[in-house]
Amino acid sequence: MAEISAMDQDYRLWVLLQQTSDILFEARENELREDGLTAMHAAALLVIKGIGDKTTPAQISRWMVRKPHSISGLLSRMEKAGLIRKTKDLHKKNLVRVSLTEKGEAAYKLAMKRKMIQKIMSSLSAEQRKQLNSALEILRTKGLKEMGIDPKKLPFQSFA
Amino acid sequence: MAEISAMDQDYRLWVLLQQTSDILFEARENELREDGLTAMHAAALLVIKGIGDKTTPAQISRWMVRKPHSISGLLSRMEKAGLIRKTKDLHKKNLVRVSLTEKGEAAYKLAMKRKMIQKIMSSLSAEQRKQLNSALEILRTKGLKEMGIDPKKLPFQSFA
Repeated sequence: MAEISAMDQDYRLWVLLQQTSDILFEARENELREDGLTAMHAAALLVIKGIGDKTTPAQISRWMVRKPHSISGLLSRMEKAGLIRKTKDLHKKNLVRVSLTEKGEAAYKLAMKRKMIQKIMSSLSAEQRKQLNSALEILRTKGLKEMGIDPKKLPFQSFA
Repeated sequence: MAEISAMDQDYRLWVLLQQTSDILFEARENELREDGLTAMHAAALLVIKGIGDKTTPAQISRWMVRKPHSISGLLSRMEKAGLIRKTKDLHKKNLVRVSLTEKGEAAYKLAMKRKMIQKIMSSLSAEQRKQLNSALEILRTKGLKEMGIDPKKLPFQSFA
């Protein structure tokens, strides 16, 4: 294991961040699965509900930090599942608006359940959560800059 | 945006963790793409090299915290790309061993490049990195426990 123990601290921290994020995503998936939802569907429902009836796929893409073509696939699956409907904008015919169906509204209420997240986050003290928040914000800003994306163009500016 | 601003802090922190992890993964992908590698291939190469010639798919699955069927798909793609070879164990015929080909060894050297990760991590002070490390370890342990997985069975026990 010499090669791996010699790995530098930064890389270990990067791996730990990826692992933790995967594990917490999976824990959330397990919780939502009981209600027949996926974490991606739940996240999209929260975003659409938050933005409101005039949500466009481009807005969802920005909020969820996913590429437009991934969001397009996600929305198609959600439409097929009867969670959302897509309508053409009355004035700009080439613009699609996304809204929740009745079934989507019911799923949204289930998606609001965040017991698992609270349970896991409660393992950190308030101070640790604050520190984690600020460290992640710094990394996110730096990462976006390195990719040539203006962090100011992202939603969720200030978590603090 | 009332619904979203009312979202509880824990959920925001969870979203931030997911976003940051996605952004840093993407930044690493961009760096590796220049060498024709993906972040998943790079991670697998580092793990196989670290464990050594007798690596089994099950070990890779544990180290990378991915389900066996995902790893199986990944290894097939890497075999097709000529990066690894699979051989049957001499004694246990139903056991597969994975090792790097010559091309895999060359790719491993490229995968060791972690300039982007260092660049991004350097935006945190040593103290912040330490705090981030310990917060993530706590969350990872708690998340695994909630999923009924014994954290002690995972590698990368101690990053500190």
